Amino acid sequence: MMNETLRVIAERCSCRDYDGRLPDREKLEAIARAAVQAPSAMNRQPWQIVVITDKAFIEEMDAEGMRILSEAGDKAVYERFVNRGGKMYYNAPCMFLILKQPDTEMDAGIVSENIAIAAASLGLGSVICGMAELPFMGPKGDGFRKRAGFSEGWEFGIAVLAGHPAVTGTPHEPDTSKIRFLE
Amino acid sequence: MMNETLRVIAERCSCRDYDGRLPDREKLEAIARAAVQAPSAMNRQPWQIVVITDKAFIEEMDAEGMRILSEAGDKAVYERFVNRGGKMYYNAPCMFLILKQPDTEMDAGIVSENIAIAAASLGLGSVICGMAELPFMGPKGDGFRKRAGFSEGWEFGIAVLAGHPAVTGTPHEPDTSKIRFLE
Repeated sequence: MMNETLRVIAERCSCRDYDGRLPDREKLEAIARAAVQAPSAMNRQPWQIVVITDKAFIEEMDAEGMRILSEAGDKAVYERFVNRGGKMYYNAPCMFLILKQPDTEMDAGIVSENIAIAAASLGLGSVICGMAELPFMGPKGDGFRKRAGFSEGWEFGIAVLAGHPAVTGTPHEPDTSKIRFLE
Repeated sequence: MMNETLRVIAERCSCRDYDGRLPDREKLEAIARAAVQAPSAMNRQPWQIVVITDKAFIEEMDAEGMRILSEAGDKAVYERFVNRGGKMYYNAPCMFLILKQPDTEMDAGIVSENIAIAAASLGLGSVICGMAELPFMGPKGDGFRKRAGFSEGWEFGIAVLAGHPAVTGTPHEPDTSKIRFLE
């Protein structure tokens, strides 16, 4: 059984290499709109969606994230990024930064998947990026939070990087052994 | 900007009244497949998808959940369910029960939204239901966990109820004030 939406879900894959070109504003708006159409517990909608296309801001956060990784005890993650081109954000021209209220990880996950599916439906690549929290955790964190417009009671939820893929990705083979029916 | 997938996302709404008819097995399989196509942190896929269509099991969990609610200090939630027909699971013929590993709420959220979107694309209603944890928390919890196949290290993540809607729902108006662009 297949339809257009199921095809988009099946073909979506996490993109870790972007060509840097900014997607059309109309596409970014459509994706942000899909984000806020997500369901949430008790319809509280405990999120804010900050669509960052400010190249300088993204590059500063990327550099700070890489610096933090370079000083980590375990250098494996840092080396992996260096080998992939040295960019923690993979040269993505756009970050959908999801701010959340405390204890709403699940809602943030739901929103992030709406963003990923909406992006895929528009021919864009995306990757849900928990690592994007790093720059907010270091000494420059306060400045970054201010610039991104965090207000009292709001915290980093998750980020979704998006843009035009520089390479054609292949989805993971789904592990259907994780499904069982109780009939 | 609109396409078929964005339309499905826009028109999805949480269904709280089912006609009880079991959807075609092919549809349930397609939804479960969409679930395991979700992205996850480090591709760990920290989930199991239990598709429960065992009517007796669903009804027993529903009755136990209602019993627990009826004994809660605050009766408001219980009264709301009573006024809606007395069924915590809204007469849904199918529950996608997502088991998770500890500290993977966000991954569970991502999976649950794939299920909700896939169901909507197939003309089915669904509702993400955190309340479905209740029966697993009471005195019958051990028995329910055993029956649902929880194994060591796995816990309740979230559930998505699905089926044919008994009523036509209307999506929430999306709150676009929660979106801002940083350009």
